[in-house]
Amino acid sequence: MADRDTTIATLRAIVHDFVADRDWQQFHAPKNLAMALAIEAAELMEHFQWVTTEASRTIGEEPGKLEDVADELADVVCYALAIANELSIDVDTAMRRKMAKNEAKYPAARYRGRYE
Amino acid sequence: MADRDTTIATLRAIVHDFVADRDWQQFHAPKNLAMALAIEAAELMEHFQWVTTEASRTIGEEPGKLEDVADELADVVCYALAIANELSIDVDTAMRRKMAKNEAKYPAARYRGRYE
Amino acid sequence: MADRDTTIATLRAIVHDFVADRDWQQFHAPKNLAMALAIEAAELMEHFQWVTTEASRTIGEEPGKLEDVADELADVVCYALAIANELSIDVDTAMRRKMAKNEAKYPAARYRGRYE
Amino acid sequence: MADRDTTIATLRAIVHDFVADRDWQQFHAPKNLAMALAIEAAELMEHFQWVTTEASRTIGEEPGKLEDVADELADVVCYALAIANELSIDVDTAMRRKMAKNEAKYPAARYRGRYE
Repeated sequence: MADRDTTIATLRAIVHDFVADRDWQQFHAPKNLAMALAIEAAELMEHFQWVTTEASRTIGEEPGKLEDVADELADVVCYALAIANELSIDVDTAMRRKMAKNEAKYPAARYRGRYE
Repeated sequence: MADRDTTIATLRAIVHDFVADRDWQQFHAPKNLAMALAIEAAELMEHFQWVTTEASRTIGEEPGKLEDVADELADVVCYALAIANELSIDVDTAMRRKMAKNEAKYPAARYRGRYE
Repeated sequence: MADRDTTIATLRAIVHDFVADRDWQQFHAPKNLAMALAIEAAELMEHFQWVTTEASRTIGEEPGKLEDVADELADVVCYALAIANELSIDVDTAMRRKMAKNEAKYPAARYRGRYE
Repeated sequence: MADRDTTIATLRAIVHDFVADRDWQQFHAPKNLAMALAIEAAELMEHFQWVTTEASRTIGEEPGKLEDVADELADVVCYALAIANELSIDVDTAMRRKMAKNEAKYPAARYRGRYE
């Protein structure tokens, strides 16, 4: 897995350069990026729209399907990082802080096997 | 920036452990996770819903607002990584492959300053 | 069912008056309304996020749940009608035209029991 | 405007018949329909993604654009009515009840020209 060696900053730079090469910062207002992210999240959902919850677990067995799903997931990550770039949010810091809030909200002992 | 040193795999492990500690893999069918991701993307959008496109650029100046936005962005990233975990998608590979497709679809010379 | 007697125009007028009474047309740019609609659609999804596809069919049996779902559905319809109001789209005409396209795209004989 | 004469029940029947003719009730679990609705809402957003808030008000002046927007809006309404059909929700009743809650939450005198 390349994810073992790749830093968040490396992926952020890829997104930054793609945008800068096209002079697209002018379109990358956070409002627009948040819409773009939600649109890509919806395109990812499309792959799971009509299958049952259980069948969605084996979607990777359908040939070509996993690449389609990975493409949409990549778009989601790209726009998430574009927002982080635009608003100078450190993803690592944001994730650890939010996860600490989640730990407090959903203590493992109480929520084991239950989500509400 | 911690993003300079943190690998994708490190963030993936944080998400994996949070889920495993609660025995939540049973709920983490890709269909459910794709819905969760879209819901978090919508919650991120809420912060930009009624402001103008231009005003969204300075949203970080409103006290407390940037932390709220960063929290929602963190939720989006968490669910994106949960999907990557569930379907064993390498985010780095997926992003680079998708970016190569985007480079072919939107050549920099032709799309400079234009998005369509 | 009141839906038997209520016209689309009647519901449109309810939405129009609510907006006008608050002088909210200034916020009701179609871009903002499209975001609001997507956000409400996500809130509706929240009720079905962690249940299985089959279990979602009986969600009405859980006390209070159907009113919550109906509230979110109402929000979706309100924003859809707000967009129709703002852009002077006749919903009946738009729906019939789109349904004719759907009939052509998904002939009943060929798509019986299959969606792709 | 046909909306002046068309009842909600008439539009509901159009959706019902389209679904029944294809034997698609089996796919129309509320969970799936809520996803479909959110996906269509995202497709509607796409038309407003990169334009400014103000420019979105005149989107109808671009030839062909209003029909595209109306098509997506129709899809949103269709899925909203499909959910109403599936869960036997009376749209008129749901909307009036929700609007009464909105009136209480946002008194006109206090929210005139302000949304928060």
